[in-house]
Amino acid sequence: MQEQSTTDTQWMLRALGVASQGPEADANPRVGCVLVAPDGTLVAEGWHRGAGTPHAEAAALAAAGGRSRGATAYVTLEPCHHDGRTGPCSRALADAGVARVVYAVGDPNASAAGGAAWLADHGVVTEGGVLEAEATELNRTWLHRIRTGRPWVTWKLATTLDGRSAAADGTSRWITGPEARSDVHEHRARCGAIVVGTGTALADDPHLTARHADGSLRDAQPLRVVMGQRHLPAGARVLDGAAETLHLRTRSPREALATLADREVHHVWLEGGPTVAAAFMADGLVDEIVAYVAPVLLGRGRPSVSDLGITTIDDALRLAPTDMRMIGHDIRITAVLQEAR
Amino acid sequence: MQEQSTTDTQWMLRALGVASQGPEADANPRVGCVLVAPDGTLVAEGWHRGAGTPHAEAAALAAAGGRSRGATAYVTLEPCHHDGRTGPCSRALADAGVARVVYAVGDPNASAAGGAAWLADHGVVTEGGVLEAEATELNRTWLHRIRTGRPWVTWKLATTLDGRSAAADGTSRWITGPEARSDVHEHRARCGAIVVGTGTALADDPHLTARHADGSLRDAQPLRVVMGQRHLPAGARVLDGAAETLHLRTRSPREALATLADREVHHVWLEGGPTVAAAFMADGLVDEIVAYVAPVLLGRGRPSVSDLGITTIDDALRLAPTDMRMIGHDIRITAVLQEAR
Repeated sequence: MQEQSTTDTQWMLRALGVASQGPEADANPRVGCVLVAPDGTLVAEGWHRGAGTPHAEAAALAAAGGRSRGATAYVTLEPCHHDGRTGPCSRALADAGVARVVYAVGDPNASAAGGAAWLADHGVVTEGGVLEAEATELNRTWLHRIRTGRPWVTWKLATTLDGRSAAADGTSRWITGPEARSDVHEHRARCGAIVVGTGTALADDPHLTARHADGSLRDAQPLRVVMGQRHLPAGARVLDGAAETLHLRTRSPREALATLADREVHHVWLEGGPTVAAAFMADGLVDEIVAYVAPVLLGRGRPSVSDLGITTIDDALRLAPTDMRMIGHDIRITAVLQEAR
Repeated sequence: MQEQSTTDTQWMLRALGVASQGPEADANPRVGCVLVAPDGTLVAEGWHRGAGTPHAEAAALAAAGGRSRGATAYVTLEPCHHDGRTGPCSRALADAGVARVVYAVGDPNASAAGGAAWLADHGVVTEGGVLEAEATELNRTWLHRIRTGRPWVTWKLATTLDGRSAAADGTSRWITGPEARSDVHEHRARCGAIVVGTGTALADDPHLTARHADGSLRDAQPLRVVMGQRHLPAGARVLDGAAETLHLRTRSPREALATLADREVHHVWLEGGPTVAAAFMADGLVDEIVAYVAPVLLGRGRPSVSDLGITTIDDALRLAPTDMRMIGHDIRITAVLQEAR
């Protein structure tokens, strides 16, 4: 039993590695599938390359040709059981003669769940929960959207050590270094949407694209979202053809997130400005903060965070750091909100 | 030659370890001495336990009894050559028949220097510069005082992630956690003086002592220094008998540091408040910052740093982080000032 368990863990680890090759910003989750023969040798593997392409199980079964009979399938997410664009994976696995299905995390999607139960009913041995925490982490933001109905929101904050985002005269180029700015583009590329307010769009006229260090566009571009009632001039950079842009004529974070969830966005990268960020914070709709702290002092200047409606220390928003590292000369602190307010 | 060098390095490393047992906050530097026989075996070792006690060389020679003849002495600081409280170590080493003296860093103290030259003139082989960087780091603040005539100043800063030191209603207990507060006491105990302004002394009525986690006093207490013209009431906690207190009736950081250098303080722990800290910053007299950043957002409230006279980004004070770590739930960033202003 213990032996078997260790083997299951090892193959699931491989399936997770395979899954992570999938696109992070896609509407669908990242899933990997590894098929292992009864003699313990690898038959085939596959992963989901994004909405509109075969599911991981279908990709692995196709790669296996006829060699799936009697195999064990290691899948990072419970096989789907709905007639989506690619047909239910539960049936495909059974039809291919797979004898056992080991999966990491159950499918929280009501319309797709039930795959494991159906497989068990059809004589396939099933086991769930192997490396569940790791598989949950892999699709943290997608699972969040499915479970809560709204995207996971990461707020990007750039600040001096003394909490300023610009000097007294308004100058702010550059507070953080090139490595930190490049890291921001990495993060943008991994999200489904970048959100700013019309204030930022009008004042800074940003591109809001995900670029490489040399300034060239990355292959995948998140949706550019500008929130607010104010008009965007035709020449605004966010209206160029580099990526899709959505102007949401609302100031309500909840409304904006509902629209983005409908578009199957599961990870929002909130870049501000301060008013929009404060509105998300006030509504308890920020899940995580990525703060770039520049080892710089300004003494005074524009505060990096706006009024959050907090007047006394007991109401302070307390974060739980999950990661901390140097990015060039700056310090990047990743933290999750300890409780929704 | 290479072999010999490695041996020298290893014995000097031992001498540095021995030296580090000395008191950090003392008027004198931390020095270690290791005596090694011609056959490569350890004869004796000694370290300086603070002003008024024997120098490291004297301690080692005493421990060696008559067994120093022909030995090599590894000393972390060039042997002194002045008639201080303990007589020149240069002569003591030669008198004991030490054949060779290897030291790490030259004595920058004009009144004590010349030991190596004197030894060489008296037939003792001398070699300097072995693990010089490590030995310099060990007495960084003492060397700073000797070289510049003023103590090394470490400014302690406690701030929320958004640069606040108190909420809008003035409450600030607690922004940082107990581990960070305990770490502050560790730092206090390693410094020669804690400096605050009369504003802080009157508003917060702090003890300014170095305490253990259970609240009890540590053995060594730094000098408590209150700067400013305002009168301290007789009942002020800084005037209790727990440690010596100096009320410097000046607002000039330069003047205060000159007084402290005269008292042989080489490391000042600057705790503020903001006005005093800003005055030190403005005069270019802060050498290092230890910032405790609490993963907390307040949105508004008292800024953790006062006006530094900076109006535009090009004049921002840029720091070079030398250490970064979690202290409980808080983040501690140690950084040196990149240039004196």
